[in-house]
Amino acid sequence: MADADASSSPGTREARADARPAAAGGLTSRTEDFPRWYQEVVARAEMADNGPVRGTMVIRPWGYEIWERLQAAIDERIKAAGAHNAYFPLFIPEAFMRLEAEHVEGFDPELWVVTHGGGRQLEEPVVVRPTSETVINHFFAKWVQSHRDLPLLVNQWCNVVRWELRPRLFLRTTEFLWQEGHTAHADEADARAYALKILTDVYRDAMEQVAAVPVLVGHKTARERFAGAVRTWTCEAMMGDGKALQMGTSHELGQNFAKAFGIQYSDATGTLRHVWQTSWGASTRLIGALIMAHGDDFGLRLPPALAPIEVVVVCVREDDDVLRAATQLTDELRRAGSRIQLDDRTDTGFGRRTVDWELKGVPVRVEVGPRDLAQGNATLVTRHTRTKEPVALGAVADAVGRTLRRVGPELRAEALAFREERTASVGSLAEAVATGTAGFARVPWRALGEEGELALAAEALSVRCLQRDDGELAGPGERDDALVAVVGRSY
Amino acid sequence: MADADASSSPGTREARADARPAAAGGLTSRTEDFPRWYQEVVARAEMADNGPVRGTMVIRPWGYEIWERLQAAIDERIKAAGAHNAYFPLFIPEAFMRLEAEHVEGFDPELWVVTHGGGRQLEEPVVVRPTSETVINHFFAKWVQSHRDLPLLVNQWCNVVRWELRPRLFLRTTEFLWQEGHTAHADEADARAYALKILTDVYRDAMEQVAAVPVLVGHKTARERFAGAVRTWTCEAMMGDGKALQMGTSHELGQNFAKAFGIQYSDATGTLRHVWQTSWGASTRLIGALIMAHGDDFGLRLPPALAPIEVVVVCVREDDDVLRAATQLTDELRRAGSRIQLDDRTDTGFGRRTVDWELKGVPVRVEVGPRDLAQGNATLVTRHTRTKEPVALGAVADAVGRTLRRVGPELRAEALAFREERTASVGSLAEAVATGTAGFARVPWRALGEEGELALAAEALSVRCLQRDDGELAGPGERDDALVAVVGRSY
Repeated sequence: MADADASSSPGTREARADARPAAAGGLTSRTEDFPRWYQEVVARAEMADNGPVRGTMVIRPWGYEIWERLQAAIDERIKAAGAHNAYFPLFIPEAFMRLEAEHVEGFDPELWVVTHGGGRQLEEPVVVRPTSETVINHFFAKWVQSHRDLPLLVNQWCNVVRWELRPRLFLRTTEFLWQEGHTAHADEADARAYALKILTDVYRDAMEQVAAVPVLVGHKTARERFAGAVRTWTCEAMMGDGKALQMGTSHELGQNFAKAFGIQYSDATGTLRHVWQTSWGASTRLIGALIMAHGDDFGLRLPPALAPIEVVVVCVREDDDVLRAATQLTDELRRAGSRIQLDDRTDTGFGRRTVDWELKGVPVRVEVGPRDLAQGNATLVTRHTRTKEPVALGAVADAVGRTLRRVGPELRAEALAFREERTASVGSLAEAVATGTAGFARVPWRALGEEGELALAAEALSVRCLQRDDGELAGPGERDDALVAVVGRSY
Repeated sequence: MADADASSSPGTREARADARPAAAGGLTSRTEDFPRWYQEVVARAEMADNGPVRGTMVIRPWGYEIWERLQAAIDERIKAAGAHNAYFPLFIPEAFMRLEAEHVEGFDPELWVVTHGGGRQLEEPVVVRPTSETVINHFFAKWVQSHRDLPLLVNQWCNVVRWELRPRLFLRTTEFLWQEGHTAHADEADARAYALKILTDVYRDAMEQVAAVPVLVGHKTARERFAGAVRTWTCEAMMGDGKALQMGTSHELGQNFAKAFGIQYSDATGTLRHVWQTSWGASTRLIGALIMAHGDDFGLRLPPALAPIEVVVVCVREDDDVLRAATQLTDELRRAGSRIQLDDRTDTGFGRRTVDWELKGVPVRVEVGPRDLAQGNATLVTRHTRTKEPVALGAVADAVGRTLRRVGPELRAEALAFREERTASVGSLAEAVATGTAGFARVPWRALGEEGELALAAEALSVRCLQRDDGELAGPGERDDALVAVVGRSY
């Protein structure tokens, strides 16, 4: 359906594109107006629409299939880290939300509340989950009894809702899809090690190796950390406009929830102890990150690992020989294991179709036309570089395989170079403001402190994370004063 | 975690089991009290718990991993049928629910309504989706313009909520997980063919080939069909107490929603026409079906295709040689591609652990103890037949592979034989009541009619489906009078 949609409705909404320069597929350029470019890519690549209730979102097949692949990559890593998936209820008694005071302060104004069910008023209103900390901890208190029950490692994939004042598709929506992991451990060190394992082996690895988005890792300042956490670890990436996007966070929760919910285990000596916990999440916001980290003025650029279609074979025009050769190439590439689509919709103009495939970010396009065919060739177009080359028909499968293998690494290298170009190490608040406005400033935390952080906020800047000067994570007991703050604007 | 839980909390809840006859794992027998047996299996196999809000459910890892495998089997078949996954919002404006009169009559008393968000009363209350027909059709009206946009084939995996008066874990819960497919077609024949493709190639195939549950296919009577559908196709299975469970339904919706939501396309001649639609769904209720179709007095019996663990290698007691041999067997079986678990928790009694593995339905158990080992053997236990045989260590992998291959077909054959034993063809309403109370009665629809159907309802019986005498689906235009009604009690 996604592909059928690509050329749908000639003469209606899509027709607007034709009035603009074809070279840029009718998109606003990123330098001209990045937010507008983003909105146009989301709409024209048919990734998402606004839902009828304010702030909600419809994820269309092209967006959802990218999500399915991202989800599979993260899920595989979560399972490798030993956690098991489960499912907890959408509805949470309002009273649960009041059990952990600091946590509820973070969420109270964001709640959506159900007051009616089955045709009458409910005796007790229920909250539609903004996160599942409270309900999961309620069950952890039942399930954890002995040290043999630990560690308890649970993850769930679900929808959550929060009141959003300035919704934006994928980036900040009333309802979004995510995974939330919740774990309980016998001691602090084990909880800490697990929070870090998730940060690096799950999130960083999936972001960099699958989404091809390089990330900085570190921990949040007290001001920026999750309400109720004692430490929030984060992955931060730079988008195409130099702003930062938080890609996933992993929290050490200490014993706050354990005490509020009474989650205790008897240790080997029979003594009752409170557990130490972690929680961690990543969401459909990552789709927004993918668009903004890799997109160009022609639309999306997808790493093959996440592309719903890796290769599209396009018939340039209606012609029996063309159709025969294109079909044969399609079959050959499919046998080679690629996710492939034949585009034989020759009743839609060739230019129009190529603009659409570029918008959708399909990594490789093989164009089959009568002129090339007469030479025994097809034209291979690499989306991320927008380069074309003639390839002998018999060599297409090899050439496509080679190209697909280099797309991910090249996108990642390009994003990394862009980030490094826009990152500078500075020594003062004033320099951090100047650099952080267009990219990332690396500034010693002791040159900022909480006062400096407040001054950054006045400039719409924030500390994205604290890390060692060499980019590594702070060790246990390492003081923030010895660390570097990464300062930038954020989504 | 699921496996660690299996032996958790000695001396607490689990200890109750020890007071009952060990041979039956402490479960109520199915013939004694089937509903109680079901509840006990769900709880003691750690599949699900009741949530804190009435009627909601926590799906624990053992239940959820079964669901993940069922979901993958269904999803794969849905994609093969050409549909694409997408995601539509949880919150639906109340006004949407009133656009299709017949449909809303079916749902009105079941709705959960959000009246507050962001700390104040909403201007317009929103409904938490009981199904997504209305919001999806709202978008179909935008997306469908031309005949080239058809067929539009969309599926979504999500949670839905309905007010439930008599909730029961998996079978009838306030919130459940499901997939709902929604499609739009250019003509009635195409819509009908697609509804049937989903019924047979997706649902029947996944139920029979993956879940090993044989199903009857047919269509619902007017009384039983989905509100708003012109025809509801269904898969019906017999549970271990002779009652029927509806496993999945596929609806032909005609043009009802198309007219209510204005979903029109211009055909090849430019004429505007309303689309023809289908919708279809299957839910976490299937986990309940799996329990009730295959379970025995010792707990679950899982077909390997759905088992989170296919083989458990159990160390009978603490012993270095035992541990070494068991670890070696585990590695060997893992290399052979099985989902395998080593149970070396020798601080928990052997009997207790085997009872737990039987409760959880793990298809094959390999017991390694010093006595067997002295003979160069292990003991292979087949869960569904509860048979034990000594196997030479070097032959275990082959024997396990052979056993795993026969579990699914044997469970399916057993369920089929049970259904046939409890099914009789009869000629009158009175006979249908007598037979249908303990199984399925096959009775000519013309011997019942709508009056007979009313009389069945008075006896807590219903027509599960109409089909041809040979078990095939009615053809287009085939009158119900020529068909057979399958009568039974239902969940």
